[in-house]
Formats: sequence, C-alpha cells, structure tokens
Amino acid sequence: MNGAEALIETLRQCGVEICFANPGTSEMQLVAALDSHTGIRPILGLFEGVVTGAADGYGRMADKPAATLLHLGPGLGNGLANLHNARRAASPVINLIGDHATYHLHHDAPLTSDAAGVAGPMSDWVCTARSSRDLPQAGAAAYAAAMHYPGAVASLIIPADHAWTEGSAAAAPHPMPVVPAVPVDIVMQAADALKSATGAKALFLGGRALRADALHQAGRIAAATGARLICETFPARMERGAGRVAVERLPYFGEQAADYLKDFETIIFVGAEPPVSFFAYPEKPSWLSPPDAQLVRLASKREDSLGALTALAEALNAPAEPALVQAPGTPPVMDGPLNAMNLGAIVAALLPDNAIVSDEAATAGLATFPMSAGAAPHDWMTLTGGAIGQGLPVAIGAAVACPDRKVLALQADGSGMYTCQALWTMAREQLDVTTIILNNGSYAILNIELSRVGVQNPGPKALSMLSLRDPVLDWVSISQGMGVPAVRVTTAAELTDALTDALAHKGPRLIEAII
Amino acid sequence: MNGAEALIETLRQCGVEICFANPGTSEMQLVAALDSHTGIRPILGLFEGVVTGAADGYGRMADKPAATLLHLGPGLGNGLANLHNARRAASPVINLIGDHATYHLHHDAPLTSDAAGVAGPMSDWVCTARSSRDLPQAGAAAYAAAMHYPGAVASLIIPADHAWTEGSAAAAPHPMPVVPAVPVDIVMQAADALKSATGAKALFLGGRALRADALHQAGRIAAATGARLICETFPARMERGAGRVAVERLPYFGEQAADYLKDFETIIFVGAEPPVSFFAYPEKPSWLSPPDAQLVRLASKREDSLGALTALAEALNAPAEPALVQAPGTPPVMDGPLNAMNLGAIVAALLPDNAIVSDEAATAGLATFPMSAGAAPHDWMTLTGGAIGQGLPVAIGAAVACPDRKVLALQADGSGMYTCQALWTMAREQLDVTTIILNNGSYAILNIELSRVGVQNPGPKALSMLSLRDPVLDWVSISQGMGVPAVRVTTAAELTDALTDALAHKGPRLIEAII
Repeated sequence: MNGAEALIETLRQCGVEICFANPGTSEMQLVAALDSHTGIRPILGLFEGVVTGAADGYGRMADKPAATLLHLGPGLGNGLANLHNARRAASPVINLIGDHATYHLHHDAPLTSDAAGVAGPMSDWVCTARSSRDLPQAGAAAYAAAMHYPGAVASLIIPADHAWTEGSAAAAPHPMPVVPAVPVDIVMQAADALKSATGAKALFLGGRALRADALHQAGRIAAATGARLICETFPARMERGAGRVAVERLPYFGEQAADYLKDFETIIFVGAEPPVSFFAYPEKPSWLSPPDAQLVRLASKREDSLGALTALAEALNAPAEPALVQAPGTPPVMDGPLNAMNLGAIVAALLPDNAIVSDEAATAGLATFPMSAGAAPHDWMTLTGGAIGQGLPVAIGAAVACPDRKVLALQADGSGMYTCQALWTMAREQLDVTTIILNNGSYAILNIELSRVGVQNPGPKALSMLSLRDPVLDWVSISQGMGVPAVRVTTAAELTDALTDALAHKGPRLIEAII
Repeated sequence: MNGAEALIETLRQCGVEICFANPGTSEMQLVAALDSHTGIRPILGLFEGVVTGAADGYGRMADKPAATLLHLGPGLGNGLANLHNARRAASPVINLIGDHATYHLHHDAPLTSDAAGVAGPMSDWVCTARSSRDLPQAGAAAYAAAMHYPGAVASLIIPADHAWTEGSAAAAPHPMPVVPAVPVDIVMQAADALKSATGAKALFLGGRALRADALHQAGRIAAATGARLICETFPARMERGAGRVAVERLPYFGEQAADYLKDFETIIFVGAEPPVSFFAYPEKPSWLSPPDAQLVRLASKREDSLGALTALAEALNAPAEPALVQAPGTPPVMDGPLNAMNLGAIVAALLPDNAIVSDEAATAGLATFPMSAGAAPHDWMTLTGGAIGQGLPVAIGAAVACPDRKVLALQADGSGMYTCQALWTMAREQLDVTTIILNNGSYAILNIELSRVGVQNPGPKALSMLSLRDPVLDWVSISQGMGVPAVRVTTAAELTDALTDALAHKGPRLIEAII
C-alpha cells in the first residue's frame, strides 16, 4: 500500500474513527485512502476552524482523538485558533497536514510555507514524515502523543510524495501512555493542610477533576473537611446537574475572582493551576489567590485527578456519601421579552437528560450556567482558550462523538460569526444539535473591557468597532442558507415553544434569540 | 501620550489611512487611540481572514499599507492564510497584533501564545515592541518594512502594557526604501539574448511588470523583437483591457503550462521567477520552462520592472508605439442557461470602465478572463498564494482604496465560504462591490485534481469530501443575512439583467449565479 493508505490503516488500528476534513490537492491521496479503507468516517467542514474545533469537541467527549485533514500551512493556519482552544482544553487531536512533495518544496510554488512552523505554536507535538514507510510510524507516534494524558494536540506533516509512494505498511499501535499518578507524600501533604487549616478552605478543580467520578470524591472530601469546591472559570468539560456534586465557578473578571478567593486560607489545586486574570489590566493584579494563603498543588491537569482525589478522601477517612450533592430543580421562568435571566431559566428547565451543552454564549449567557445547576444531569463545555469561534464546531464534535445525546450550543452572535460555516456541517451530517444564537448585536464584552482598561467616554469610532449593528445580522437567513432550519424569538414564550419543538426532534435546528 | 497613541500618530504621519480591525480586550488601548486620533479610519471585520485579506486588496490598489488590528496569537492565526496570499502578492501590509502585558505572559493565562512564532511563517518582518517609547519607533520601522519594494508583510506585536503606558511620543517616518534598479549589464544581457535569438522568444511578466506603464514598455520590446508577452498564472494586479498592451496568461495545470512554453528558446523574466507547477504530481515535472531554453532574469519582483523594461526597450531602439495593443470588443453572449462561457461574455460586455476585478472564481470562472481581454480598461486581481478565501476580502480592500471605482468580485462558492463574513463589512461600509457567486455546488477543482494525482474511480466517501451539495448552499440567504441585497440567476438573460442593475447602483450587491 502507499504511504497514505498505510497511515490511515494505522490510525484505524489505533482507534481513530472520525476524520474532520477540509482537504486540497496535496491531500488527495489521503482522501482516496479514507475512501478505500473502511473504518474512518470523513466529515467535511467548509472552513478549517470548523474542522479543528470539531476535533476538539470530539476529543472532549470521546476521550480519544479524531483526525483532522488540513491543506498545507495556510489551511492549518485557518485551524490554529481552535487548536489553541483544544490545547488549553487538553483535548486529544491528531492533525494530518498535507504538504508539497519534498522535491517540490525548493521551487517555492505559490502555496509553499513553513507548515511545521505554523503548527508549532499551537501543537504539543509536531513531526514531518520522512518517507512513505515512516509515515505510518509517525501516525502511530502521533496517536500516542495525542493520548498523552488527558490529551494533546499532535500535528503530523505529510509530504505528498510520501503519501503516494508505494511500499509502505501499517505500523503497530504504541502502548498507551500511562496516567501519571500523584505521589503519596503529595496526597498526605494535602490531607495535612486540610486537617490543620483553621480558616476557610477550598478545593480548586479543573480538567478531569470535573468529571462526575472525580467530583464524587471531591464531595466526600468536602463532607470530611468542610472545604468548598470551586472550579476554573472555563472548564473543558464538566459533568453536573441534579444528583451530582455541585461546584462553584470562579468569576471571569479578575477583581471579582480575587474577591471571591480572598478569605481562603488553604486552597488545594486538582487538575488546575492557581488561577490568574484572563487579561492584564493597568493597576490590577494578575495573580488571584490570596498572597498569604497556603496553596497545595495536589494534581496538575496532566496527573491523575481521580486517583489523587480518591486517595485524599481515603487519607481523610471521608464518609462514603459526598456533601454538596445538587438537588434537582430550576428557577421559575419569567414571562415577557427575552433577557439573559429568563433565557437561562428556560434552558435550565428544558435541558434534556444527559444533554451536552457547548457554551460560547459570553455575556448574554452568563445566567444560564448558574440557573442550570439543578437541571437534569448534563455535560457543560466552555471556551477554554479564549479564541472565539469555538462553540459551534465543538458542538459538531460532541454530536459526532455522542450521537444518542442531544447537544445544545449556546452561542453569542459575535463569536458565532467566526465559524458560522459550522452550520453547514450540522446540516450535512444531520447532527442532533440545537443552536441558540444570543443576538445582542454587539461584542458586548468589549464594551465592558474598554472601560476596564481605562478608556473613558469612547467615541463613535471606538464604539463602531464593538458593535454588530448596522447592519444587524440575520441569523435565521444565515442558518437557512446553510441548510439548518431556523426561527427567531423575542419573548420567553416564543423561546419556550421553539426550544421545546427543537428538542423534540432529531437533527439540527437554530433559534435566534434576540436579547 | 501613551504607547498606543504614539504608535497610531506615527503610522498616520507615515501615511497609513485605514485600519482593518478585529480587536479584543488586549487591543482596547489601540481602539481608543484610533478613536481619539483622527486620520486613520477603522473598518471592522467579523473574522480576521476578512481583515488581512482586505489589507492585501488595499495594498494592491493603493501601493501603500493599511494596518490590521488583530487579537493575540489566535486572532493572528485566523488571518494567516490571507497574509500568505498577501505575501505572495508582495502587498504592503502592517499587522498590529495585541498581546498580553509583558508581566502577564509568564502566568500562562488562557489566551497566552507565541504570537511572534505564529507571525513568523507568513511575515517578511516581525518585531515585538520593547517599551511604550519603543512602540512608535517600531511602528515607523514596520511602515518602512511594509514598503520594501513592491510591498511586504510587517507584523508588529504590541504588549498591552506598552500600549497603555504614558510618556511615549510619535516617531519620525523613516526614509522610504529605494526601488532596486536593475544593473545595466543585466539589461544588455537581456537585449543581447533577444537580438541573437533565432527561435521563439518571450517576456515572462509578473508583479509590477503587469501595470500599464510597464506593459507599454513590454509592448515596445515586442514591437522591436517579435517577443511574445506571457504573464504568471496568478498576478496580484494586472492592468488590462482595450487600448492596453495585451498579455497571454500561463495555464494553471503544469503539463499545459510546460506545453505552452515548450517551443520558446529565449525567455526573459521580469518581475517574476521562472514558473513551476502549482502542486507536484506523480511522474510530472515541477519545472515548466524548456530545459534547453535560454532563461534571463531581467528583474526580480523586488527590482524595478518598469525601469528595466524601459532600459531594455531603449537598448533595443524599440519604436515608440507598442505592439500587441488590445483592440476593444467582447464576444457575443449566448442565450440560455448559465454556463462558464456566457457568464464570461456577460461580465466582459458589462464591465464598467476602470473597474477592479477580484477573481477567485476558480474553474467556473476560467472563461471570464480571456473573454474580457477587450473589455473596457480595468484591473484584474487573482489568488496569488492559493490559500482560498481571498476574493471577497480583497474586494473590500480594493473598494476602500478606490471608492470611485466599481469592484466586481468573481467568487467560487467553495472558496467564498471561507470568508463569507466579508459580506457584512461590505454592507456596513456600503462598499461599491458587486459579488457574483459562481455556485456549482462543488470543490470542482478537486474533482479534477483527484484524477491528476492518480486516484481512479473514487468512491462515495471521497466524492462527498469534494461536494458542496447536500445541503445546497443558498447564497442569497447568506448574503441577505449579512445585509447585502442578493438575487439568484440561472440564465444568461437573468444574469444580464441582474448585473446591469447592480452596476447601475452604488453599494454592495450579490448575484448568485447557478452554473
């Protein structure tokens, strides 16, 4: 078989099932190999940011990588922003990046670029295949790199001649990387810190510590010690809802976050680093933990959070039953024109059991998260890296990974426009995604940030750069143009009806909520 | 003034008039500086590929840079593909890339990335400002770097604390870089080659050699020597039409291009390197010039093509009047359902005097270029770097640079989807751009390329990755959703009516042509 076929067969044997693709001429051999070798399903995206964001969402839900198929350095460039988010989410992703044939590179044809250079800043692992026989070996290595616990972005650059040259063969999968365990003395140090603490104490949780099994252990620790449970502001995937151990979420703005943490004397970090402000601001601190608090790093995001929390609970002789178990129930819905509050209440009330929420709703969606705390059990995914345009692609990946679960994308208008092409893939694959566009006609967060960085009385030129009006975006038209049925709502009753209807049907729907 | 204000004032003094912007929190001081310092007009794009592509189009038409305003490494990443195209076009562009405050970087906040690393592969010049006082100095240097003849991509990374720190001052503009002249002995070598040639000879033209003044000199050389005039396949900007010296365009596919060139014994290169195939293919050569031809590099794209051609014409005692002057006239329009031929004829017949064409029409638009040879004089811009999604943004930039000229964007459907957000900016700025979407429901070029790389009998999985059907894209809906009036046409008569109407009005219009 040729190099492309050997690579695809290798990835299939490793366990890859999905390839989110936006190929070009230099990837045609890989397209042919996906065609002729059963077992990996290609899914077309009309823009590379959709492709890489979908791989991120898939990785978060499947805990194993999808492949992407990208067209040289520029195609990879288009996918970088969502690879940045994937890397911050510690999602497993394998990028397959076609490049010119090795002997063609020195001619500097128009599409020539430094593909490895483009990949570097947003990858945990980069490799350029050296031959058609090396290509499947590199593929097996890429899979292992992507599975570096809990997940990593592996980028494999594939010169076209290595893809089309015959005489290659599939490579054996590597042994899976082990999940690094936390040393016992670190567990004992955390236990001692909690036991000896006289003031307020907290577990600060992130990454895999936000899965239900790990939260159960955290809840046991809370029962034993009275520690509060707080999570990072932008978790990759959090299992929550009625019956699960509930966690408080750190506020976004630095000064609010610092105020939130200021009274803690002991903080144990599990699957997360001590939080810092998202941006720097003049005269405001970046570091958010109290300067004199005792900070104990129990587990980094690349260590076994579940094991560490279980060991800590045992070391504390924690009771079997966790504290902080969330009671079922959601707030009442206020009638009238839509706003952030009744939107949040409606979503919480209607959220189906075992739903997956992709949350890039930004300011207009802030109420939805707290209001859905007691909703039916569900997964909540957020914008991990701050590179907007993640929400719709991540919803695609989640729907592909979990075809039997309803996916709800809560999407702000400004960030939704970055990867609006995602709607087309939802339509083509008939993915079970309901998208709610929160249309406030503004990069609303930037109006807040403008004053926070010290700009007073902004003029019309500044404000024009933060406004999405003139013209107003018509998401119903955009969505229908890409094949996703859509409806616009302006009141609580209309949203309730539209969301009820969308959730009752399989397949993609879009609701434009005017806020 | 603070660093941001000093930078903006410096760029204004250098001559920057436009800033295509997609800012975030780390760029708020720059937004404020654009607001308070008159003279630079900010234009919002809803995606960074729109921003950088618009700067490319502006640079091609204005021959000086616009600034872009981009949000850290991920925002820059979204703009990389069109920076790749801009660099291949040798367009002057200045990227202003906000980054975290210097003291915030080590905290590794979620949006932290290696911005300079992201910039490197697609920039000719990269600099990270070192202080608020250094920032305007770096801005002046960036302007000079962008003006490196005929144009270059300069990327300036701006730590937020340098932008907000007071005590800076505007920097003086640098002297403009000189245009490198071609040495006399090179001119004489080219003259001797043309005079002594017994077989077929050609001037192979690219870059600035495709402006009307340079083509006039090339036409004089043709008159003196009988040389044919051939241009690179993807010129950045070509001045053509009735009354101008006409140039043949090298075919796209390598074997056709090699066949086209095979009988030439002498080729003089002006503003272009010897052509190579766009991609490598198994068993096909990359190098397209005949192996035994005499190749003379008169001027690289970074040397003075006009001066070199003028000197060469004088050295040949060429007549004052050029040969190969294009007669006016366009082919008749065939009635009936739309196809590539009657679409080309309609566009040629209706093209307004002094129009600017942004051509990313790909396969369905191939006939339009030759059919418009004798149309009213106009500029023709193409996809220089092969990174699709350039056409609509470049049209924005051209319309901003030349508000009194009609811009016609000929846009394939597949590539148009990459940066469809460009339509919104056309609507907001009420740019005088008529877009024709050539909707064939396919990445048609890839169906051709699949067989050219040796894939026979592709199956349904392969073909699904090359098809834009299921669902069909409805560009009228997409366009209207972003505020640009749109109409769909399926016959020659309908296109004639729609295009006549669009060209008769100022402001953005979109025509979806079903091919």
